[in-house]
Amino acid sequence: MSQSNQIKAESIFRQMYDQDAFSQWLGIEAVEHDIGKSVLKMTIRPEMLNGFGIAHGGITFSFADSAFAFASNSHGRLSVSIETSISHLVALKAGDVIFAKAKEIHITHKTGIYTVDVTKSDGTLVAVFKGTVYRKSKEWKI
Amino acid sequence: MSQSNQIKAESIFRQMYDQDAFSQWLGIEAVEHDIGKSVLKMTIRPEMLNGFGIAHGGITFSFADSAFAFASNSHGRLSVSIETSISHLVALKAGDVIFAKAKEIHITHKTGIYTVDVTKSDGTLVAVFKGTVYRKSKEWKI
Amino acid sequence: MSQSNQIKAESIFRQMYDQDAFSQWLGIEAVEHDIGKSVLKMTIRPEMLNGFGIAHGGITFSFADSAFAFASNSHGRLSVSIETSISHLVALKAGDVIFAKAKEIHITHKTGIYTVDVTKSDGTLVAVFKGTVYRKSKEWKI
Amino acid sequence: MSQSNQIKAESIFRQMYDQDAFSQWLGIEAVEHDIGKSVLKMTIRPEMLNGFGIAHGGITFSFADSAFAFASNSHGRLSVSIETSISHLVALKAGDVIFAKAKEIHITHKTGIYTVDVTKSDGTLVAVFKGTVYRKSKEWKI
Repeated sequence: MSQSNQIKAESIFRQMYDQDAFSQWLGIEAVEHDIGKSVLKMTIRPEMLNGFGIAHGGITFSFADSAFAFASNSHGRLSVSIETSISHLVALKAGDVIFAKAKEIHITHKTGIYTVDVTKSDGTLVAVFKGTVYRKSKEWKI
Repeated sequence: MSQSNQIKAESIFRQMYDQDAFSQWLGIEAVEHDIGKSVLKMTIRPEMLNGFGIAHGGITFSFADSAFAFASNSHGRLSVSIETSISHLVALKAGDVIFAKAKEIHITHKTGIYTVDVTKSDGTLVAVFKGTVYRKSKEWKI
Repeated sequence: MSQSNQIKAESIFRQMYDQDAFSQWLGIEAVEHDIGKSVLKMTIRPEMLNGFGIAHGGITFSFADSAFAFASNSHGRLSVSIETSISHLVALKAGDVIFAKAKEIHITHKTGIYTVDVTKSDGTLVAVFKGTVYRKSKEWKI
Repeated sequence: MSQSNQIKAESIFRQMYDQDAFSQWLGIEAVEHDIGKSVLKMTIRPEMLNGFGIAHGGITFSFADSAFAFASNSHGRLSVSIETSISHLVALKAGDVIFAKAKEIHITHKTGIYTVDVTKSDGTLVAVFKGTVYRKSKEWKI
């Protein structure tokens, strides 16, 4: 990864994240910026749990969905989610620190496909996410 | 729908919802209870928006995922999500009131498949969700 | 449904189907043509079975995928699949006659979302399919 | 991979494949056998094309679905598909030789999740597939 790519990806991340109230509520932090890639970190809090005392499925999804949005927008074109899916593998408890690693699988002029692995600090795979974006012609200012 | 089914479904909903901190944060209200079915309502708030000024994809997912959980657990058996997907059709703004209608497509001894339609008050379809659960042998107390 | 819509949808179906060797191998017949819609019929044959003596999952998928293609192309714009999913509910045997009903859920200038229900003659739901297309600017000749 | 694992996986593959008329029609060959894994090869033939002159989406799906079935059954327990999805990335023509590599993502007593990458001989990624099985208690004879 080149330094200019990281700077471009970080600039777009900042524009998105600084206005993104829900990602802020989640407590998302960026670990790595690059074109077509995003690594994020967050900690499960008590207010994120469901009736089983484990993280609500929507929390892991939201976290992966944010990584997907940052990775797909990092090229500089506005990209919007058209289809996403998630498989939950392992339950999470309050205090668990998790990472989302979004990876670009394929990109065309108009669409892009990404996978996101959500893992615990010890590397345990917690959820697998797949998402497809439609890439608009509108560009981010960099 | 019989009255006893509604009472059973409501009893399980209460046990799940009263401990479900995240569904409470979302401001989810139950509109209708029945076996294999769930209708919920919520309002989009400013803290649920992403960097585009529209509801974060994780909000609509979480809302649909809660309806899916209530519907699939309403039979009385503990049911856990194994695979879910969502297609976002229409953007939501702060103040929008939305409904989730979870419907049972198929159920076997061990698995169940549900679809959830998310709509606005005027009936506009906002998102379509599909989910599969694994049905444990453990039962809810009713 | 208007008569002109049916004629347009049928014209596009013919152009697609007459060149579609695999749909022909499947023995697909059109039951109904309309814009954004497709109803197809086929019969499970012994050469479509897997090692369990039931229809291979790829057969039901292929059948639903064809209905999805006919429905999404019926508007007159070339439409290509970008994401599809299927849940198999009921096993099929040789001799079973099945129907696929493709329905348009949402359409924008560039993308379209469809669901396909696959049923047996007696109405039993066999599989549920969801698909997303990217709509090219190139048009079919009508 | 140990030799006994390969022998076990191959024995189950043979029992499944020798009765699997549709995988035989596809011309599927096994490249590698192992527990929780399957690598297959096939060649696109003219009768597998759709109305666009490229491989029907159902062909790539069926190929990936077979790899998924062989990988998930290789542990010795009968495993049936409950949910699958595929994203088609690159069109295939008659004569193209393709490979499917099924990989186990997560397995529990009752469910298993697999991804399958479909590639061309030159390594180009053609499609990404994800599948979930329900693992029955019935066992294969080995």
